[in-house]
Amino acid sequence: MGYYSRQISKLIEELSGLPGIGSKSAQRLAFHILNMPLEHVEQLSDAIIDARRNVRYCRQCYTLTDEELCPICSSSQRDQKLIMVVEDTRDLAAYEKTQKYQGVYHVLHGAISPMLGIGPNDIKLKELMQRLQGEVDEVIIATNSSLEGETTAMYISKLIKPTGIKVSRIASGVPVGGDLEYIDEMTLLRALEGRVEL
Amino acid sequence: MGYYSRQISKLIEELSGLPGIGSKSAQRLAFHILNMPLEHVEQLSDAIIDARRNVRYCRQCYTLTDEELCPICSSSQRDQKLIMVVEDTRDLAAYEKTQKYQGVYHVLHGAISPMLGIGPNDIKLKELMQRLQGEVDEVIIATNSSLEGETTAMYISKLIKPTGIKVSRIASGVPVGGDLEYIDEMTLLRALEGRVEL
Repeated sequence: MGYYSRQISKLIEELSGLPGIGSKSAQRLAFHILNMPLEHVEQLSDAIIDARRNVRYCRQCYTLTDEELCPICSSSQRDQKLIMVVEDTRDLAAYEKTQKYQGVYHVLHGAISPMLGIGPNDIKLKELMQRLQGEVDEVIIATNSSLEGETTAMYISKLIKPTGIKVSRIASGVPVGGDLEYIDEMTLLRALEGRVEL
Repeated sequence: MGYYSRQISKLIEELSGLPGIGSKSAQRLAFHILNMPLEHVEQLSDAIIDARRNVRYCRQCYTLTDEELCPICSSSQRDQKLIMVVEDTRDLAAYEKTQKYQGVYHVLHGAISPMLGIGPNDIKLKELMQRLQGEVDEVIIATNSSLEGETTAMYISKLIKPTGIKVSRIASGVPVGGDLEYIDEMTLLRALEGRVEL
């Protein structure tokens, strides 16, 4: 990119290293940044480095946070005996958006995938089992509805069952508002298998 | 975004302020950044702030650069008497990619637009006229082929003509490889008007 000066080229190069940002978008973003007020650019640059420097795992649920104990784990409003197991912090955020779930979480940071060589020891599973030595009423497994997510759910439920703690799995089926015509066969079969009596 | 801790929320908020980045992409980018090695995040953060802090206009052609005189204006390989006028630094980069243009540039930073209230004094036009007091053989107007670009081209050519310096306009027409069926009427008419004898 010899047609841009050194620092502009460097900026474009760094931005195009981010996921989903091709060389055209990187150029567009770079020139947007170059035209932003210096103060705003400082805020952006600081937000990036501060978040990365201070991010850590919550010592209880392993979500990404900047505190030792995340806001959910330290809340007295939440049911600390109800644990929802999710694959990552974004899945936690998705459930938090519903504003209906009152329990806490456990973030695995991945899912078991023999294909990708990710085994039970590569995700925060030992840490979950350790938590279960405390007082826990129920573990809700909310891993994704993918092959890896299902494998992980099965594996975890087998580990937990001998402890006598209740284990459940979030339901699979037709999404709310979903038009059957456009839904894949696997989902339709799941919805049929999981039918409930009215 | 109470479901993310403070610094992560701040990062997502800053990223979603960038053009073309919605809240979903901002979350995806934020978690990508949180998972990047610290050293790479420092490079990204520094590239952003360094480029913005040090960016300035080249004192001759007004392109965005981090030097007083940009690499093109200070090159002895380039024909300093041939000036291509473009709307912005990205347009300059587009011509540089062709690797065929051997002259220099003048970056207007915009185009005349009565609709948006942008007049001749709001772009680097006085600066162009000043440059023409030096030794110049030809000015090639390469503003965009939009209403604003054409208006600007017309305006500039009227200003320059009395000086006796040659003024030209890049050709409009059917793009190379373009299928006539899919090309708009205006372009087809332009291509017809601009036909050259074979």
